[in-house]
Amino acid sequence: MARIYDQYVQHMQKVADVGHSIAVLSWDKEVNLPKGSAAKRSQQIATLSGITHELFTDAKFGRLLQRLYAMKNLSRKEKKNVSLTLREYKKVQKFSQEFVIKRSHVVSKAYHAWIAAREANDYDLYKDALQELIEIKREESKIIGRRKHPYNALLDQYESGANVAELDKVFSDAKRGLKKLISELNSSTKIKTGFLRKHYPQDKQWAFGLKVLEHIGYDFEKGRQDLSTHPFTTSFSSEDVRVTTRVVENDFANMTWSCIHEGGHALYEQGLPIEDYGLPTGSAISLGIHESQSRLWENHVGRSMEYWTYMLPKLKKQFPENLKKVSLDKFYRGINKVAPNLIRTEADELHYHFHVMIRYELEKKIMEGKLNASNLKTAWNRLYKSYIGVEVPDDNQGILQDIHWSHGSFGYFPTYSIGSFYAAQFFHQACQDIPKLKKQLRKGKTDKLLTWLRENIHQYGQLYDAKGLCRKVTGEPLNFKYFMDYAREKYSSIYGIEE
Amino acid sequence: MARIYDQYVQHMQKVADVGHSIAVLSWDKEVNLPKGSAAKRSQQIATLSGITHELFTDAKFGRLLQRLYAMKNLSRKEKKNVSLTLREYKKVQKFSQEFVIKRSHVVSKAYHAWIAAREANDYDLYKDALQELIEIKREESKIIGRRKHPYNALLDQYESGANVAELDKVFSDAKRGLKKLISELNSSTKIKTGFLRKHYPQDKQWAFGLKVLEHIGYDFEKGRQDLSTHPFTTSFSSEDVRVTTRVVENDFANMTWSCIHEGGHALYEQGLPIEDYGLPTGSAISLGIHESQSRLWENHVGRSMEYWTYMLPKLKKQFPENLKKVSLDKFYRGINKVAPNLIRTEADELHYHFHVMIRYELEKKIMEGKLNASNLKTAWNRLYKSYIGVEVPDDNQGILQDIHWSHGSFGYFPTYSIGSFYAAQFFHQACQDIPKLKKQLRKGKTDKLLTWLRENIHQYGQLYDAKGLCRKVTGEPLNFKYFMDYAREKYSSIYGIEE
Repeated sequence: MARIYDQYVQHMQKVADVGHSIAVLSWDKEVNLPKGSAAKRSQQIATLSGITHELFTDAKFGRLLQRLYAMKNLSRKEKKNVSLTLREYKKVQKFSQEFVIKRSHVVSKAYHAWIAAREANDYDLYKDALQELIEIKREESKIIGRRKHPYNALLDQYESGANVAELDKVFSDAKRGLKKLISELNSSTKIKTGFLRKHYPQDKQWAFGLKVLEHIGYDFEKGRQDLSTHPFTTSFSSEDVRVTTRVVENDFANMTWSCIHEGGHALYEQGLPIEDYGLPTGSAISLGIHESQSRLWENHVGRSMEYWTYMLPKLKKQFPENLKKVSLDKFYRGINKVAPNLIRTEADELHYHFHVMIRYELEKKIMEGKLNASNLKTAWNRLYKSYIGVEVPDDNQGILQDIHWSHGSFGYFPTYSIGSFYAAQFFHQACQDIPKLKKQLRKGKTDKLLTWLRENIHQYGQLYDAKGLCRKVTGEPLNFKYFMDYAREKYSSIYGIEE
Repeated sequence: MARIYDQYVQHMQKVADVGHSIAVLSWDKEVNLPKGSAAKRSQQIATLSGITHELFTDAKFGRLLQRLYAMKNLSRKEKKNVSLTLREYKKVQKFSQEFVIKRSHVVSKAYHAWIAAREANDYDLYKDALQELIEIKREESKIIGRRKHPYNALLDQYESGANVAELDKVFSDAKRGLKKLISELNSSTKIKTGFLRKHYPQDKQWAFGLKVLEHIGYDFEKGRQDLSTHPFTTSFSSEDVRVTTRVVENDFANMTWSCIHEGGHALYEQGLPIEDYGLPTGSAISLGIHESQSRLWENHVGRSMEYWTYMLPKLKKQFPENLKKVSLDKFYRGINKVAPNLIRTEADELHYHFHVMIRYELEKKIMEGKLNASNLKTAWNRLYKSYIGVEVPDDNQGILQDIHWSHGSFGYFPTYSIGSFYAAQFFHQACQDIPKLKKQLRKGKTDKLLTWLRENIHQYGQLYDAKGLCRKVTGEPLNFKYFMDYAREKYSSIYGIEE
């Protein structure tokens, strides 16, 4: 008879098989789905989601978990898997079927309202549905259990252990530090970016994107790239991790850094141990750690002088007309221009975090009951003025820009900044651990860095939580200092510091 | 409370959702799967298959079916759905889980043995695994229930009601009729086919294939075409029916007729009523009827003088170099050349059926216990000599050519010929019912034919069985005469008849 732990593994793999099937259907929906096929596809995904839920919440499975949790003779890894699964099991058990169905309807309604509001550029069309969503999120937080702050329950779903007390500290450091840095940058510095807006033909951009992925070590035998409206990464197992991108012909930056970004996510997924398929130790830790991997490649590698020292000559061969007069220095400065802007996804590395902080502040107040859909837009516009210094001209460039809330993803945004800050801390450590890493990057060698990430981060899955991993790898908890040091060094060299 | 019939529909849709998810995963496997991802994908498909089986064989569902079956107040369609589902339910119940697992292992072993044998061009590497498969198929037949002939239970799985008595009759008519016709064709007629073997570039062939699909009425808003090693059609609902093709640059015929063939299958699936999704009345009747739709478009339309009267000028615009000297008559004769050959999938419309008859004879004897894997190859080669007049030079061109047995698909082959014979009978009827159908086809108009197929065949799903439908549409049961008449008229006009 199989060991009881093996029964657990078998069941978890079954759940994972269905979960990954949902991922295949969803990927296909974004990449391939014919126009007239959406309704049945949604139904199929909903059915599989229901089955995953049934399998995972199965009472027999719950008893198995309890038995395993009480056992003494499990290995450390086995214990970790069982305790994480039991924690998730208990959490999911808290939600009645009634609540889950209601939430799914409210989310679906909000999503369609958001689509309609986007089309009309009119927040009013979204407001009521969003209010319902806000209320169900407050209810969800109560069901999970209030903890110290009602927002914590939601934050924890994307970043295990994340909480308002810690985030307030990180974001207040970030706000102060970044405001100061931006104010010090020499505002008379001229940076030209016109070369990024020339005509870059679709097929050549696509070919360059594939080269970029190959260069950072993405394994095309265990993945592929396709086109979709919004770039994303998805995994059907660490042996089939797919990325998508989009190509805009007069906007070279659009595809290029999204390729490296998604590539970074994909390297993490490809690096998870296949032998732990379906288990926590075979899965990514958190969204913050995931984002640390994408940001590390996108920014610390992909927007560095070292990377383009190697890559720009190759790029020039692809697009000689567009780039012949662009020196390495001009290119590097162009891709790192700092300027206040309205749209989060188009922000530079510094302003980006103000976009995130605004959402964090709003969500926190929403969960405290101090903000509702009715006064959210006013609050949004006020914060954009105060944090970034821009006037919001219309709803599409303001409160309607992100899809996340319409998906019910409250608590998600902070992981974007957390991920960037982890990235800086990890990259700093990698530079300590790998002699001459930057010199290697200048020569186009990325393999040592990937090996370092594989060994220090990817291979563990959830054997450590985000905080534990950060300590293990860097010797200290998340510290905004590393991002600040990186940013100050980089941008003062580009802009100079005003005295 | 929902009507009990609605509960049935809901459960059937759930089963269909999982079944169609398997289809998505399988399609993706053939079309997109990265090299190194096969193992986990197979596991995911196996898990979903297990779930479909669990859902369908659920005892509670069985009781629901029994209750419904006893009810008086169902509509005709509802009764049909319930009785067909109950029939399937009872059949599936006969198989123990032990048997199903054993069969799946034996099939998997046979498939891998077949792959290895193909690579080595050596039947001996396949023989033992095939023998195990033969034995499990005999066992399967016994479990289903012997009926009058042990082969019948297997035939019935692909073509409901098909049996040895009827097929013996059809195939003996076919054998006699086709032998006679082929022997009468004027053997001194010269037919040139070299123009089909010129260089037809991939992208232009692809574009032409899409045009062909569009022209016959394939709805690209409810489907798409992709490339795969072997062309196939798959359906995720009648709103998402996908076809695949392959392009061989020096073989124009390869893609073109596979496009029309798969297009014919796809038109059937797109024509099934979406409101009956997941129910027998929303599903195709049988493989034979399916094949009648593909063959009708492939041969009665796609290899007709009428079709190419319209299409050849368009084709010449695409490939002026290759076709400028090719007249309509030369083209028509070239694509309809009759010649004995070794490979079923490359056979002309007449010899094709000998290939099928050979497999029918062999399978029948296997099921009677008169043939085993050890003497199968000798029997195969002897029948090829006797039926087609060719010597089999090696195993790959002989007994190893088809994948079907390695999948455990015994009883499948006859549907290929049955389908062609149904196609002739249906097309004959369509010509009766649609005034000037052939004249329309000459003008490139296919919509009346498609409407006729939609109204007479597609819309019913399984409301009629194959035999019932044939009677309803044509006024008589399957009659080989229609194929024979079609073939005699067509080929005697091409070859002339020797006196």
